[in-house]
Amino acid sequence: MGQTACYYFFGKDPTFALATVVPFGLNTRQMNAWLTQAGGEQMLNDFFKSYNVIGWTGGNTTAQMGGWFRKEIKTVEDLKGLKMRIAGLAGDVMSKLGVVPQQIAGGDIYPALEKGTVDAAEWVGPYDDQKLGFVKVAPYYYYPGWWEGNAALHLLVGLDKFNALPKAYQAVLRMAAAETNNWVTAKYDADNPKALRVLIAGGAKLQPFSQQILEASFNAANEVYAGLTAKNETFKKVYESQMAFRKDGVLWDRVAENTYNNFMARQSAANKI
Amino acid sequence: MGQTACYYFFGKDPTFALATVVPFGLNTRQMNAWLTQAGGEQMLNDFFKSYNVIGWTGGNTTAQMGGWFRKEIKTVEDLKGLKMRIAGLAGDVMSKLGVVPQQIAGGDIYPALEKGTVDAAEWVGPYDDQKLGFVKVAPYYYYPGWWEGNAALHLLVGLDKFNALPKAYQAVLRMAAAETNNWVTAKYDADNPKALRVLIAGGAKLQPFSQQILEASFNAANEVYAGLTAKNETFKKVYESQMAFRKDGVLWDRVAENTYNNFMARQSAANKI
Repeated sequence: MGQTACYYFFGKDPTFALATVVPFGLNTRQMNAWLTQAGGEQMLNDFFKSYNVIGWTGGNTTAQMGGWFRKEIKTVEDLKGLKMRIAGLAGDVMSKLGVVPQQIAGGDIYPALEKGTVDAAEWVGPYDDQKLGFVKVAPYYYYPGWWEGNAALHLLVGLDKFNALPKAYQAVLRMAAAETNNWVTAKYDADNPKALRVLIAGGAKLQPFSQQILEASFNAANEVYAGLTAKNETFKKVYESQMAFRKDGVLWDRVAENTYNNFMARQSAANKI
Repeated sequence: MGQTACYYFFGKDPTFALATVVPFGLNTRQMNAWLTQAGGEQMLNDFFKSYNVIGWTGGNTTAQMGGWFRKEIKTVEDLKGLKMRIAGLAGDVMSKLGVVPQQIAGGDIYPALEKGTVDAAEWVGPYDDQKLGFVKVAPYYYYPGWWEGNAALHLLVGLDKFNALPKAYQAVLRMAAAETNNWVTAKYDADNPKALRVLIAGGAKLQPFSQQILEASFNAANEVYAGLTAKNETFKKVYESQMAFRKDGVLWDRVAENTYNNFMARQSAANKI
């Protein structure tokens, strides 16, 4: 039994990435809804079966930041030749824009940024990033992390062991995953704002990715998906289900939720809240 | 034991409203985070104690719509004298803008709108509104429902009965609330988009509230809060905790989450997803 982000196993099969998040994929609530209401969980467990595990989402670290850069990145041109610590599918998308993706373990990122072995690195968001101290060596802190509009963690259990459990114990595991799902998102939503304040006080220069960079990344992501769906039937099936959900989910988000959040954002910018 | 929106008991004490949502209050994720990570649940249970109940959030129907109007509402002037089915704190805020709030049970809203006994009515969002058929008699469907940026339901249990339960049974109740919390939000996020499509096909005219109306409502809400905090110590304590959380929560939301959602909204508007 373990809790993990399935996209770490992207190398075995890119379908694993769809269990966590893919570039320009679902946001946190859309991911929960797709998993539990639109057949996502069942589809993933059909896929997990060949690895002899079963799982449920158990924690989501929410929309992430775009990472730490030693220099300002204003245009797609600025990305060319940039060495960036970024993994998995996001790395493949970045490659199409000229970035040279680097795979570096969490603990090795700081010295690599300090020495200039890499020019940029993405990790998670303010709460986790603060602990690693990147602000001191790469102060430009970009957003949003378009490769992680959410980040669903999974509680994975050996399928044979799970099937051998009494029904009540199976229910306990599923409920523990559900409770963890609430708790992790709530914790990140409570701790990220505090960490962001500390980071800004410590010199972080918050910068949005330009619309040009976001558009180019979006198009590059679609090219990567075209390649993957052409050669992997399982990926194609799960991807298409997730993207159909995205289409409707974003359409609805544009109405009540996003308009409300945008109004509150304007009130915040005007120091009225 | 029951599941309810505590704001229905607003008449007993306005503090109950803070357990569900107040105008221009938290969004769904902020509410979950305030409840479980920032002392909200504890503060509410201290308050619930005098009613001999204990509770936890168990379901959130998310940001709501602004309701159904027989005519277009463009300015604050258009609200004057408008008879609207709207309850609780939101009704008090609307009063300040000249609206005449009406209390009508769900099943009686349709005939009242049809006869013109009321000019407008708010209910929930597409999924619930569709069932009541308002589109046929009041086609202007406004958003966002600024009085319900989220709508937290509570699982309430008699305190003495809860305390008498074995620890494992207490845990089962709390886990059931957590699982329901995930499930209800996911269900609304999955079903609202479908219902919205049906409503639009059926003639609903989607309209955003103007910035002028939102601003005036925001200011009116603050006047209502000033009155309530001046005369109710418990309300003041819980309100201030919730609003401090709102300030930080929106500040963070403006960075990764909202920027991501806004980009996806633009891609949706451009038919790219």
